[in-house]
Amino acid sequence: MEYSQLKNIIKDENRVILGEHIEKEYLTDGLALEYGEADALVFVKNTNEVVNIIRFANENLMPVTPRGAGTCLTGASIPTKRGIILDLSKMNNILELDEENLNITIEPGVLLKDLQDYVESKKLFYPPDPGEKASTIGGNISTNAGGMRAVKYGVTRDYVRELEIVSGDGTIITVGSKTIKNSSGLDLKDLIVGSEGTLGIITKITLKVIPKPAASVSVLIPFDNLKTGVNCISKIIKSNSNPTAIEFMENNIVENSEKFVDLKLPCNNGNAYLLLTFDGEEDEISANINKTREVVINNGALDFRELNEEEALNAWTIRGALASSICQNNEQVPIDIVVPIDKIPQFVEFTNECGKKHGIQVIYFGHAGDGNIHVSAIRNSMESNEWKQRTHKLLNELYKKSNEFNGLPSGEHGIGLTKKEYFEKVTKDENLEYMRNIKNIFDKNNILNIGKVYC
Amino acid sequence: MEYSQLKNIIKDENRVILGEHIEKEYLTDGLALEYGEADALVFVKNTNEVVNIIRFANENLMPVTPRGAGTCLTGASIPTKRGIILDLSKMNNILELDEENLNITIEPGVLLKDLQDYVESKKLFYPPDPGEKASTIGGNISTNAGGMRAVKYGVTRDYVRELEIVSGDGTIITVGSKTIKNSSGLDLKDLIVGSEGTLGIITKITLKVIPKPAASVSVLIPFDNLKTGVNCISKIIKSNSNPTAIEFMENNIVENSEKFVDLKLPCNNGNAYLLLTFDGEEDEISANINKTREVVINNGALDFRELNEEEALNAWTIRGALASSICQNNEQVPIDIVVPIDKIPQFVEFTNECGKKHGIQVIYFGHAGDGNIHVSAIRNSMESNEWKQRTHKLLNELYKKSNEFNGLPSGEHGIGLTKKEYFEKVTKDENLEYMRNIKNIFDKNNILNIGKVYC
Repeated sequence: MEYSQLKNIIKDENRVILGEHIEKEYLTDGLALEYGEADALVFVKNTNEVVNIIRFANENLMPVTPRGAGTCLTGASIPTKRGIILDLSKMNNILELDEENLNITIEPGVLLKDLQDYVESKKLFYPPDPGEKASTIGGNISTNAGGMRAVKYGVTRDYVRELEIVSGDGTIITVGSKTIKNSSGLDLKDLIVGSEGTLGIITKITLKVIPKPAASVSVLIPFDNLKTGVNCISKIIKSNSNPTAIEFMENNIVENSEKFVDLKLPCNNGNAYLLLTFDGEEDEISANINKTREVVINNGALDFRELNEEEALNAWTIRGALASSICQNNEQVPIDIVVPIDKIPQFVEFTNECGKKHGIQVIYFGHAGDGNIHVSAIRNSMESNEWKQRTHKLLNELYKKSNEFNGLPSGEHGIGLTKKEYFEKVTKDENLEYMRNIKNIFDKNNILNIGKVYC
Repeated sequence: MEYSQLKNIIKDENRVILGEHIEKEYLTDGLALEYGEADALVFVKNTNEVVNIIRFANENLMPVTPRGAGTCLTGASIPTKRGIILDLSKMNNILELDEENLNITIEPGVLLKDLQDYVESKKLFYPPDPGEKASTIGGNISTNAGGMRAVKYGVTRDYVRELEIVSGDGTIITVGSKTIKNSSGLDLKDLIVGSEGTLGIITKITLKVIPKPAASVSVLIPFDNLKTGVNCISKIIKSNSNPTAIEFMENNIVENSEKFVDLKLPCNNGNAYLLLTFDGEEDEISANINKTREVVINNGALDFRELNEEEALNAWTIRGALASSICQNNEQVPIDIVVPIDKIPQFVEFTNECGKKHGIQVIYFGHAGDGNIHVSAIRNSMESNEWKQRTHKLLNELYKKSNEFNGLPSGEHGIGLTKKEYFEKVTKDENLEYMRNIKNIFDKNNILNIGKVYC
C-alpha cells in the first residue's frame, strides 16, 4: 500500500504532504537538534479522520508519530521509523465550558496559552503552568507536564477528567469521566496521561478548572548557600503557608541571565535564591507570607523581599531566561530529573562534580518545592564526537545517582527518544515488561510512536 | 495439590485455617448479608509470605480473595470461587515517616483511624476521610475510597505515591515513586489504585501527607428544597471560599436520625440542608465562611448557622447516623452513584419516583460537593424473593439513569461483587475488554479476586 493513498482518506491536498515535500520543522522537536524522516505528514481536523488514518496505518503496518505543537524537549515528536506524522494542531477548538460542574471540554490541539486566556476571561483558572505556553494540551497530557504551580496545585494529570482516544487499531475509547469521583473499574485514563502517544491518539479532552485566585504575590529570599535554602522548604510547607511555587537558582547563573535580559533582581546579596509565589485572597496571601518570613529568617535567610508587581515581573523574567541566557546559540542537553526535595543539595553538588570530571559546563535550577531539577549540559565549542561521548557518560552518572536517591529520570518533560536509553537502564525489567505488555493491548501492531519511552 | 500444604509455607498453625474451621466473619463483607465459601484462610505477616502464597496459588490455580478489615459494602471481600482468603490485617506496621519530604510508608493492614491518629500526633494530616475509620489503608487504596473531605483535598488516589505489589505470579513490583512529580513511563501505580485486588496484592504503601490545618469550623444551611441548595454549590465553589466538605440531606431522614441519636440540629426550619466544613487558619476560615454566607443568603438559603464545637459534633453525628438510623435491624442495599453536581436534584427526584414505582423505601443523602450520592434501598418486611426482584429492577433503572447523566456506578465504594452486573451493563464493551486484557497481564492464570468488578 502506498502512502499516497492517504489522499483518498483526507481529500484536501493541503493536509496530506508526502515525502520530500514535508517541511523540516515537522521532522524534529522543540530543540531542533535531531531530525527524523517520514513518508507522510497529515493534518487531521476531527476524530473520524484520526480513526481513518489509524485504521489505514494499522492495516498497512505504517508507523505513526503523533505531533502537537512540536515543542517537546525529548525527541518524542521525531519520526524515527519513517511512516506518518499525525499532526493534531488543527484540532484546536474549545468545545464546551461547563460552569456548573467546573470543567471544560476541548480538542487536543488547543494551546496552553489559549486555554489559560479563555478560562481566565471567565474568571476561572487552569492551574498547570508548564514553561512552554505555545505547547498543546494534548502534548501536556501526553507528557504529564508539570510547571511552576505544581507545589500548590499539582500537575496536568490532576486536571484531566475524561479523554477520548483512538487506540492503535482505530477503536475510539472514552476513559475517565466527567464526574469528580470515580471508583468504577480500572483507571484507564491515568494510563493514557503521560504515555507520550504510545497507547493512543488523544482526540478530545475534559479538564477540571477551578475559580481564579483573587491575587498573586512573589517573594525573593537570598541565602548564603543552596543547602540552607533547601532546608527551609519542608519548614515552609509545614508552616501551612501554602506557596504556589518554590523555585531555586544560584547566583552564578542568575548573573548571566540578568545581563541577558538587562534586568536586576531586587536583592543581590545571595549565593542562592528561593523565589516563591503565593496566590489567593489578599489577607490569606499576607498571612502566608508572614508565616514564611518567620520560618526562613529563623533558618538562615539573608533577607526576605516581598516583591511589587514590577519586581516580580523582573524576577520571573530572569528566572525564565536562566537556560536561554546560556544556551542561546549554544547546543544544550536539557534534563529534568526529579528527586526527593531533601536530596536537591546533594544532587546538584554531584552534578557540579560530574560536570568538572567530564569537562562539561553544567547549569541547574528548578522547582525546589517538588524536587524537579532542570540541568543543562552546555556544549560551547566542544567537538561533536567528543561532546556526544562526554555527555553520554555524564548523563549515565546523573541518572544513576538520581536513582540511588529514589529519584526518577523525568519529572515533567517525559522520556521520549533522547532519555529512553537512560530510562530503561534505571527502570526495573519487570516494570518495563508490564509497560510493553500494556502497549501490546492498546497497539497490537506496534505502530504508535515506536522507539520512544519504553517501546 | 492440597490446601493443607499452605501449612508448609506459613509454619504457624494460628495463621493457616482450613475449610470448616474458618470463622463465618471471614466469608463476608461489612454488610454481612452474603457469605461465600473458602478452602483456606491465611494471615500473612510480610511480603515474602505473600509471594510464597501467591506462587503456590498460581501454580495450583487456586483462587485468592484478598482481605483487609472486611468493611467493604460491595462484596469485594467475599470468596465466590472457594480457594484462599489472604488476610493482610496483620501487616499493620507504620514503617517510616519522612518529615522532610512529607510522606509516610506503611503496611497495607494499617487502619485508617490509626494512620490518622499517628500523623496528627506529628502535626501532619492524611486528608482522605472515608466514613469507615476501621477500614485498612490497603482497602482504601483498592477501592480508591473518597469520604467527606474530597471537595477540598481529593480522594485516596491523590495521596498514593508508591506501592509495592505482588502480582498474580508472585512477582514483586514497585509502582509510582517517592518523588512528587513523575513523567517517567506508563503510570502503573494508578492502575493498581481502585483495582479492588484484581491485579495484585498491595504489600507496602507510601502516602503523601500534608501539614495539619490549624482549625476547622462547620456551618449548617437550611433550604426550602434540595434544588435550591444544590444550585448554590457551584456558586460557593466559584466564590473561592474553598470548603473542605459539602454534604446534603433532606428533612425526612434527618428527623429519623435525630430521634435515633437523641440529638437535634441547631436549626430545623429547612426541608433540605447543606452541611459544610471549612478548615485552615482561623482568619482564612472566617473569610471563607463570610463569602459562603453572602452567596447562599442571596441564593435562597433560609438561614446560615455557624456551628460551635458542640453543635458541629451533633450535626455530624446526625449526618453520620442517617443510614444506620433507618437500616438498623433492617436489610439495605447501599449504593454510591456519582453524577455531575448539577444533576443531583434530578437524580434524587428520579430515585424517589423509582422507589415509589417499585414499592421500595429509598433514602438518600451524600457528598453534594462532588456529586457522590448515597442511596439505600430499605427492605423493611418485604418477602425475600420479592425484595430481590424489586431491588434488581430498581437498581437497573438507577444505574441506567445515572449513566444518561454522565454519571458512574461508584464514586467511592468500588464495584465488587454486588454491582458487577450493573457496572458491566453501563460500561462500554471496549472498556471492559481493555480492563480484562490488563488483568491478563498482571494475573495470567486468573486467580486474583475473580468474579469481581469486570472479571
